[in-house]
Amino acid sequence: MNERNSEAQSGEADKKTIALIESIAAQVRADIEAGKLPDLKFPVRALDNVTYDKARGYLELGDAEKQRTLTVTTAKSFAQTLRLMATSRAMVEHNDFATKREVYYISKNWGDCRFDQQAESDATMDDIEAMASKHGLSREQLRFYPESHGGSVAGRLTVIDRNPATGATIEIDCANLGTGAYSIPRSVEHLGFRTDARFVLAIETGGMFQRLNNHRFWETARCIIVEMGGVPTRATRRFIRVLSDMHKLPVYCFVDCDPYGFTNIYRTLKAGSGNAAHVNRFLCVPQARFLGVTPQDIVDFGLEDATHPLSATDIKRAQDALDGDPFIMAHPQWIAAIKQLLAMGVRAEQQALAKWGLNYVISEYLPKKLANASGFLP
Amino acid sequence: MNERNSEAQSGEADKKTIALIESIAAQVRADIEAGKLPDLKFPVRALDNVTYDKARGYLELGDAEKQRTLTVTTAKSFAQTLRLMATSRAMVEHNDFATKREVYYISKNWGDCRFDQQAESDATMDDIEAMASKHGLSREQLRFYPESHGGSVAGRLTVIDRNPATGATIEIDCANLGTGAYSIPRSVEHLGFRTDARFVLAIETGGMFQRLNNHRFWETARCIIVEMGGVPTRATRRFIRVLSDMHKLPVYCFVDCDPYGFTNIYRTLKAGSGNAAHVNRFLCVPQARFLGVTPQDIVDFGLEDATHPLSATDIKRAQDALDGDPFIMAHPQWIAAIKQLLAMGVRAEQQALAKWGLNYVISEYLPKKLANASGFLP
Repeated sequence: MNERNSEAQSGEADKKTIALIESIAAQVRADIEAGKLPDLKFPVRALDNVTYDKARGYLELGDAEKQRTLTVTTAKSFAQTLRLMATSRAMVEHNDFATKREVYYISKNWGDCRFDQQAESDATMDDIEAMASKHGLSREQLRFYPESHGGSVAGRLTVIDRNPATGATIEIDCANLGTGAYSIPRSVEHLGFRTDARFVLAIETGGMFQRLNNHRFWETARCIIVEMGGVPTRATRRFIRVLSDMHKLPVYCFVDCDPYGFTNIYRTLKAGSGNAAHVNRFLCVPQARFLGVTPQDIVDFGLEDATHPLSATDIKRAQDALDGDPFIMAHPQWIAAIKQLLAMGVRAEQQALAKWGLNYVISEYLPKKLANASGFLP
Repeated sequence: MNERNSEAQSGEADKKTIALIESIAAQVRADIEAGKLPDLKFPVRALDNVTYDKARGYLELGDAEKQRTLTVTTAKSFAQTLRLMATSRAMVEHNDFATKREVYYISKNWGDCRFDQQAESDATMDDIEAMASKHGLSREQLRFYPESHGGSVAGRLTVIDRNPATGATIEIDCANLGTGAYSIPRSVEHLGFRTDARFVLAIETGGMFQRLNNHRFWETARCIIVEMGGVPTRATRRFIRVLSDMHKLPVYCFVDCDPYGFTNIYRTLKAGSGNAAHVNRFLCVPQARFLGVTPQDIVDFGLEDATHPLSATDIKRAQDALDGDPFIMAHPQWIAAIKQLLAMGVRAEQQALAKWGLNYVISEYLPKKLANASGFLP
């Protein structure tokens, strides 16, 4: 049991964010005063600038850079970029935040400098985020928050937060929320944790989460359960990552046995996505392991008659993973599992275990799987 | 401040559920023993059997019935219906529950009686639900739980739940969850509440919910805030309904100013949907009122330059509402508001208020609106 001094850590990050923004602004100002055209440099956010290092464990942005020099044609986007950085700085100073959509509307008061479409402000924010990520600062530290819902959490965990108005510490006991759960906030950078759990179980569906919560699976299994609700949102991924890092907790992923579960839900949680490679270093959970459902589980747990044939989309997704997904291609065990699934020609949902009784998953499946965690797919 | 004895109430509902299932089973058995072909009667679940009574306030199922008599061709579906009712009974007795998907998989162990597609088990469950609804029993009381996530809640509310294992009372103080929130469980029938709030604010987007929560809007405004995340799920609607009924709390709805916000989000919360009319009586919140954003707000709060043109889909949705939505057609103020929106040719999101500053919504918009709650659209 330990906990971090979360206030001190967010204070450090805030200083770093402001220092980064000030140093860029100072350089632009110095260039202008010296009669030079100022420029801004951003990492290239494109798939051909994404690499996968098995040891590091997530898809990451390479070193290619693009340069935005102040010219007649770039004057508007140059100014917009600086104003967005100033917005970020002001939010750090006033302890506030904004969603992408709010940022777009803030610009409506910038006169000629306003964004005409949200797609423009989104792209500019992505550039700033990518640049900040190279300095170890996440989007949340810039105070740009995601719109999406954070997942739900229950189990042997106390979340340490603070009253945003007074700064007073608030402790939330996730073992004491009844049939409800703790809803993860959109930014988790300021949170601390206290736990005696042995692992984190990340669950695909809300229904399975509710089952494990109502039967207090986390109490006897000594764990923390997290509802992902399909592909986990940024807030959910970051929450699991920080919690796991801070307390050296293994993370086990419990999803459907189909290509979407393997390559979209699990792969996104563990190694991130190619489209937003600049944030993967903060969001990915490289320590995650795949508890199941695996193709071999369909055989081992007698689920053959509770499967569905693979659809054309399933088959294409599986082939694409074998042919082009750097994470899958780096792991022979995943290649073998996906080939096995293709050979079987079927998929199985995690609810298929209900064939043996609603709580078979609690009394048989999970205990058997957890007894052999070293055998989990990587 | 008051609270109900939630345990006693759920016990009553459980007895009623079992009595209903037993009476149907007894009738089937009596028919068979008397050499008669047994039959089961269900309400017709189709749009032409849906009515809207302005006084009652929600779309409801009419009295048309369909009859399923046991014959050679109906033997399988007849047996499936009875087995599903037996499953419901067993879940009540063992204090368990199942999602639609789990119910489908349970049937995999029913031999010839198994469902081949989830669509079949879903339709059979809908029939049973519709029948039970005529006896005042909701789907949740049959122990069929929705898969979908419940929304998030924060504010001046203590939720009274119980430890599902020991039955011990658990109290969750929704004013003490920091930047996080309380995640609504999939069934709320067993919950009790204690509150000194003056109203419930139901919010469309997660971003706006997080803003109001981080700035503890609910503290000074003395309210409870609920995140709907688009069209509210069944659990979210039921939660708001029970909370509002029990404590006579007004419910104010804060969504985007567009036809989707009016006729999908707000209308579903208040009057329900035609497709699932048999559950509306449990889920709708007829006492809800529309706080905004209204077409007139675009003018009154100077948001003209933060709007977007109505799309073809927006215009069609607005016209369909004027021409065929029984809820809209029953309320002249809604007809006028939608016509005003069509005449203006634009829509506005709730985030558009950020044009005047990120927290304008807290310092200006909401206080001004709340000072004139009697003027809210019905």
